[in-house]
Amino acid sequence: MRNILTTWSLASRTLQTSCRCLHTTAPVARALVQRKQPVMATTTTLKGAPFDRALLEQLMKRRLFYTPSFEIYQGQKGIETKGLFDYGPPGCALQANIVDLFRKHFILEEDMLEVDCTMLTPHEVLKTSGHVDKFADSMCKDPKTGEIFRADHLVEEVLESRLKGDKEARGQKAAGDATKEEDAKKRKKKVKEQQAIKLDDAVVQEYEETLAKIDNYNCEQLGELITKHNIKNPATGGDLNPPVPFNLMFETAIGPSGAAKGYLRPETAQGQFLNFAKMLEFNQQSMPFASASIGKSFRNEISPRSGLLRVREFLMAEIEHFVDPEGGKKHPRFEDVKHIKLSLLNRETQLSGKTDIETKSIGEAVESGLVDNETLGYFLARIYLFLTKLGVDQSKLRFRQHMANEMAHYAADCWDAELLTSYGWIECVGCADRSAYDLSVHAKKTGAPLVVRETLKTPLKIEEWAVDIDKKKFGPHFKKDGKAIETAINELAQDVRERLALDLRNDAKCTIPVPGVGADGSATVPAELLTIERRTRVENTREYVPNVIEPSFGIGRILYALIEHVFWTREGDEARGVLSFPPPLAPTKALIVPLSTHPDFAPLVRQLSAQLRRLGISNRVDDSSASIGKRYARNDELGTPLGVTVDFQSVKDNTFTLRDRDSLRQVRGSQEDVCEAIRRMCDGTEKWADVEARLPLFVGQELEEEAK
Amino acid sequence: MRNILTTWSLASRTLQTSCRCLHTTAPVARALVQRKQPVMATTTTLKGAPFDRALLEQLMKRRLFYTPSFEIYQGQKGIETKGLFDYGPPGCALQANIVDLFRKHFILEEDMLEVDCTMLTPHEVLKTSGHVDKFADSMCKDPKTGEIFRADHLVEEVLESRLKGDKEARGQKAAGDATKEEDAKKRKKKVKEQQAIKLDDAVVQEYEETLAKIDNYNCEQLGELITKHNIKNPATGGDLNPPVPFNLMFETAIGPSGAAKGYLRPETAQGQFLNFAKMLEFNQQSMPFASASIGKSFRNEISPRSGLLRVREFLMAEIEHFVDPEGGKKHPRFEDVKHIKLSLLNRETQLSGKTDIETKSIGEAVESGLVDNETLGYFLARIYLFLTKLGVDQSKLRFRQHMANEMAHYAADCWDAELLTSYGWIECVGCADRSAYDLSVHAKKTGAPLVVRETLKTPLKIEEWAVDIDKKKFGPHFKKDGKAIETAINELAQDVRERLALDLRNDAKCTIPVPGVGADGSATVPAELLTIERRTRVENTREYVPNVIEPSFGIGRILYALIEHVFWTREGDEARGVLSFPPPLAPTKALIVPLSTHPDFAPLVRQLSAQLRRLGISNRVDDSSASIGKRYARNDELGTPLGVTVDFQSVKDNTFTLRDRDSLRQVRGSQEDVCEAIRRMCDGTEKWADVEARLPLFVGQELEEEAK
Repeated sequence: MRNILTTWSLASRTLQTSCRCLHTTAPVARALVQRKQPVMATTTTLKGAPFDRALLEQLMKRRLFYTPSFEIYQGQKGIETKGLFDYGPPGCALQANIVDLFRKHFILEEDMLEVDCTMLTPHEVLKTSGHVDKFADSMCKDPKTGEIFRADHLVEEVLESRLKGDKEARGQKAAGDATKEEDAKKRKKKVKEQQAIKLDDAVVQEYEETLAKIDNYNCEQLGELITKHNIKNPATGGDLNPPVPFNLMFETAIGPSGAAKGYLRPETAQGQFLNFAKMLEFNQQSMPFASASIGKSFRNEISPRSGLLRVREFLMAEIEHFVDPEGGKKHPRFEDVKHIKLSLLNRETQLSGKTDIETKSIGEAVESGLVDNETLGYFLARIYLFLTKLGVDQSKLRFRQHMANEMAHYAADCWDAELLTSYGWIECVGCADRSAYDLSVHAKKTGAPLVVRETLKTPLKIEEWAVDIDKKKFGPHFKKDGKAIETAINELAQDVRERLALDLRNDAKCTIPVPGVGADGSATVPAELLTIERRTRVENTREYVPNVIEPSFGIGRILYALIEHVFWTREGDEARGVLSFPPPLAPTKALIVPLSTHPDFAPLVRQLSAQLRRLGISNRVDDSSASIGKRYARNDELGTPLGVTVDFQSVKDNTFTLRDRDSLRQVRGSQEDVCEAIRRMCDGTEKWADVEARLPLFVGQELEEEAK
Repeated sequence: MRNILTTWSLASRTLQTSCRCLHTTAPVARALVQRKQPVMATTTTLKGAPFDRALLEQLMKRRLFYTPSFEIYQGQKGIETKGLFDYGPPGCALQANIVDLFRKHFILEEDMLEVDCTMLTPHEVLKTSGHVDKFADSMCKDPKTGEIFRADHLVEEVLESRLKGDKEARGQKAAGDATKEEDAKKRKKKVKEQQAIKLDDAVVQEYEETLAKIDNYNCEQLGELITKHNIKNPATGGDLNPPVPFNLMFETAIGPSGAAKGYLRPETAQGQFLNFAKMLEFNQQSMPFASASIGKSFRNEISPRSGLLRVREFLMAEIEHFVDPEGGKKHPRFEDVKHIKLSLLNRETQLSGKTDIETKSIGEAVESGLVDNETLGYFLARIYLFLTKLGVDQSKLRFRQHMANEMAHYAADCWDAELLTSYGWIECVGCADRSAYDLSVHAKKTGAPLVVRETLKTPLKIEEWAVDIDKKKFGPHFKKDGKAIETAINELAQDVRERLALDLRNDAKCTIPVPGVGADGSATVPAELLTIERRTRVENTREYVPNVIEPSFGIGRILYALIEHVFWTREGDEARGVLSFPPPLAPTKALIVPLSTHPDFAPLVRQLSAQLRRLGISNRVDDSSASIGKRYARNDELGTPLGVTVDFQSVKDNTFTLRDRDSLRQVRGSQEDVCEAIRRMCDGTEKWADVEARLPLFVGQELEEEAK
């Protein structure tokens, strides 16, 4: 089982894919470390019980958090819906709340320039960025059945299956076994492969080494492996065509002629780079600044799997922070965060085959050079604060540094924020220092000046060897070679100029190498045509291409990991789940339940609901005839943090009980009190403990009712 | 000049496009009415001055509200970027605020089920919905130059140009002349056509009639017109290929095989229909309910134009309200809105060639039958409330009813909310009663039960003629015809059954028509095989396909029209614009300006900015050395409603002046007072007048400063 990180990379997908082509120095140790993740990681809920993925998946479906898209069309001819998911009301609200917190935490807090760029992107733009050439996985096809396999997955699957068969033959229990359910599924598919056949020890070792390096094989090498290990279609045993690269971008044509090729963007970054000059102008030429973009991106995965974690259409949020490459990439607000302690898995640890975490303040990490610079460190800390505000379990969050061969050649440093889920550690945020790469390639392609021009506070005095050509005489003297010689002179390096100045003084002429000119590729220039002398030049402005620090968020992955982190079941009621979203994140904030269907309750319910709505607090009324306990159980599954019960006492004195989802404790207060408490918990200014300290506890009929 | 409404239709694009094919009963009067819109409508700003589009466009560019996408790539080979726009920071914030208000006003207020469905959509889904076959415009190509024209636009352009030439030849000024600037542009393109040539009176009449009916020609008919009127490429005079239909959906392939064709959705509705059964379940089987979706849609326009009004990628918000078709489609909250008065342009008025508005309460409009039902009426009123909350000018808002031939055959009624802009009246929201069409076609295609099953409160007793077949004898008696005869019997209508019951009693047999059976297509059934008798059946459930009322919002169009509505210039400073967004909608809520760059101001500025941020209020600090007047002018253009000035008095007593963008009046208060006033204005609970009533007016140095 290969670790998913290396293929699910989000921020650095391009980098990684290109790595597969460009950097094949295979670090076996790294791959081995990563392979230590089992298919189904054993994780525990926040109450310490074993996490049950099947139970959560049933809940997700039952409560319509998300659902496969076009499900009623599945099975129709020519339909491909894998990797496409629709969010239902709770998923949609949760997503909107994550995005809202992203806007507040990053964009508003840091005055970032939010832009919304198109998803349709012309071919040329993605050609320049490198996506057209390198954003690809290898696939091979069964020419008989038409089935298509992702080549690395296939090799992996088959070799692992054989190793498992070997272990069975040796009477060992295979390590990292999948759950029973998954096992059953796999067995069905792998009839031909998964047999208890003992392998030679040398073969076992070879397979294990191959698997360890699986991410580092390019398309051709994967083809060799398939031939060498006689890998066939696992379901039919049929031969496969050699693997070919498959670009992961969805292609379309823009405009009616069909001639202008375009793609759906595979990330939101390019639009930000292309608008750099306009944004700099908008920011009144002030540096550093950041832009941000929240929107859908698209990747035509060869074989999508693992639910929301590898999909073909997904919501991203990306920040591009533009910074002067000189001066160590300091950040003005680094002071505010430098005390924050992060769990770091550094490059060296991974290379030595370990996964030990070190907990360090980001201040230390930057100072020691582990994290490349302050700006990168600042964003790692801010990402940490964002994820913990969302409610992720801090013990399931780590920052993993990319190893050299994971990064593109131009990247200075890169860290992934990974969240532990039942699928293993999942990259949810990437944070890379992409140097000046992106702006440079687009500037080079288009000629647009994607640069910063800075007026120098103290003008720079530059002493240098300057050349002066007497143009009137120069042209007639050299005739057709004039231009080439002039260009060659202007391009002379300082040390050469110095030497030639001496020649001119001593010999009244000098010889300049000019390819293609004269018999020996050089020209002799008399001193009357050329002066070279030491001069002082004053520069008042400085021009530079900013570097880019890019924090890149996979919102769908964060959403799914968060759901796993906050999921638990109550003792004695393990079939029903609870989702303990923090109130600001919860899809619905409050449930209003009348004790019974008694008509006296209706006006109070309406009044409460309307007041909460005025406060901008989403709430739902459940006035069905189900028991209060059942009604609350439904809302536990929706992650609704607060419940308001309307009872006979409410009719008399307009007081209500307010119930906390997590502790099941209740307080009682007036409508004003209760609504204000909900408001404060939902905007994050108060916790339940604060409310309990203010309002009287209530132990009444509802609690007993709930037991029913 | 054809009116844009008929081609820019949003909600009913499919309908209209299909209308062009299905309903060719050309209502000349309608078309004539619509043609009364000039290219450049003369509108006035909210201060009564003539609206200057060029000035606004410069502002939009200068302040980066929006910008052409991929602009630095324009001119590169094979690049097509028309109809694609990026939103810069103010446009993006404005868009987010419109969406936020949409969520509060519709989704939260009405407990709608928000869903987020994929944009990638398989072919079969859009084949079923009708988009694959009918979502097309006609285009023709110049085989020499490769240029592509939208056929109806081309015919229009050429005939109009000839008519104009005729008028010039007759010495008349052409009516509805474009602005000078546009004229100049057109003239450049139409050298060959736009000459002052007098036409025969009969030809003029023919051209005018053709233009009046331009929307009603199908592809073939447009081809005939092009031949008949000898229409060529206006720029070169070259021949054109006959027009062909061009489907407006962007096509792509989903999955690696390339075999599964898909499109980018042209609207957000289909995902909602496909999830109907799941949403009904989520809603605990309770009807009526509405779903809503906010997201991008895509249309590959043949020739995009008019800035944000006709683009290839755009943000939509669509509501699908599912309602029982029986019982008159009442709405439980209709009472709350029935007093609201709307400006209505009804179907009959348009057919009689007029555009007179009648102002009616929506209660009257529904009661008189003008608006088909309460639910449709309820949404028209809610749309009105939404648009006016956004800040659109009420005098530039009307509801136009679709005429019969504008609607699809299945639609019950349809109204567009139109906003008057310099491009004429623009459809910004469509609101259609789509009957049971959408759910029915998808159910039929997939077999999924997209229905509501309702337990009847009082079970229905149905008296009917029931048939009983003695199956044991029936088969052997009729042999191979048995099945067909049995089917025919079961399908017999009640009146036929009654007659046959009589036959059976009288003749001990009856004759049943069964196509293809016997010599005469009938079978004689003896009484011993068949009983037909009157019985009472009790039905406890009712099953029905809900009808759909669909309000559909073009967010980009609303955004643009709103910007035109709130744009004005101050007397004496006409070069600089002001955008009077209501505070809840404004991209940035407050500008903080220190009087000068004096270092004492900095801590106060930081403190103010941080407090506003804590309150969730977006603010910007401008501590540049420009005059206060200049700094405010910049923010007038960004539509920032409030300004806080930090001056020397602030340093002494922590009081600040708060400035109103629209009136330029100022009040003074403590930090607490000022922030609270901003908060209340931004959440819409207070207006400037309320603030002025509470806090002391301030007339001080800033006002004088501003005059500089």
